[in-house]
Amino acid sequence: MLILGLDPGLGTTGWGLIRAEGNRLSHVANGKLKTDTAATLPRRLAHLDAMLSALIIDHAPDGCAVEEVFVNSNPQSTLKLGQARGVVLCAGARAGLEVGEYAARLVKKAVVGTGGAEKAQVHAMVSVLLPGVKIDGADAADALAVAICHAHHIASARRLP
Amino acid sequence: MLILGLDPGLGTTGWGLIRAEGNRLSHVANGKLKTDTAATLPRRLAHLDAMLSALIIDHAPDGCAVEEVFVNSNPQSTLKLGQARGVVLCAGARAGLEVGEYAARLVKKAVVGTGGAEKAQVHAMVSVLLPGVKIDGADAADALAVAICHAHHIASARRLP
Repeated sequence: MLILGLDPGLGTTGWGLIRAEGNRLSHVANGKLKTDTAATLPRRLAHLDAMLSALIIDHAPDGCAVEEVFVNSNPQSTLKLGQARGVVLCAGARAGLEVGEYAARLVKKAVVGTGGAEKAQVHAMVSVLLPGVKIDGADAADALAVAICHAHHIASARRLP
Repeated sequence: MLILGLDPGLGTTGWGLIRAEGNRLSHVANGKLKTDTAATLPRRLAHLDAMLSALIIDHAPDGCAVEEVFVNSNPQSTLKLGQARGVVLCAGARAGLEVGEYAARLVKKAVVGTGGAEKAQVHAMVSVLLPGVKIDGADAADALAVAICHAHHIASARRLP
């Protein structure tokens, strides 16, 4: 099963693709999608949408996952993130994928073992869990982390009677 | 020139289509796009996106316009609105349309003549400016108002030397 993790952002959206076979995980690819800060907001969103569609068509994942948003105290930042996040969730669902949403605590727990882990620990553990991975920056690391969380979630669900 | 005004919302997105010939405006159609509250967020966003695409293909507007967002004091509401708004802006730009964004004050000024007008005045004036219109609720009225604002904006821009 191929799982696409996504870390939405208007400027940079991180993505990470992993393969999950039972409890075994392996890295497939990761990277970031960047939009032109000089373009208008609607064009940046449409560009992000088109890049996501290309990515999904190219890799044909079986599922995708996004972290639930930490609502910022700055309403303008929340709105901006919300707009990019809307496009990301929409692109996944439009492609017929189930889009899992996971709280940050759950992602940390899945990757590090504790919901209160630091970002740096999460990134370090992503490298441990996906041997040989070369991570294309912090956004891609976050995307791989949520993909791992989704894989654990699916594996647990299958163990249920 | 056909102008599509949009009032984004996750549950209900209002839309209004007007024709602008110089300073003369006429109503073409208006309505609302509703998503199923029982569906997941990604599916609701993808449904909204598909309905918008259908609307744009059906009517082939020359431009579209959206009101700038009043950032709510409730961050969860801001995030929710942001996600729907991202999909709406993206759908317009993906269809190759320029998407105008106008502050609420500008919309009120264009429709009523004063930026501090009440919502009810705006809706009443939309009916006056678009004779014969039957408005499909408050969201469609807001959408027609921003379409009128966009028409004024274009007409003013053309009068510049």
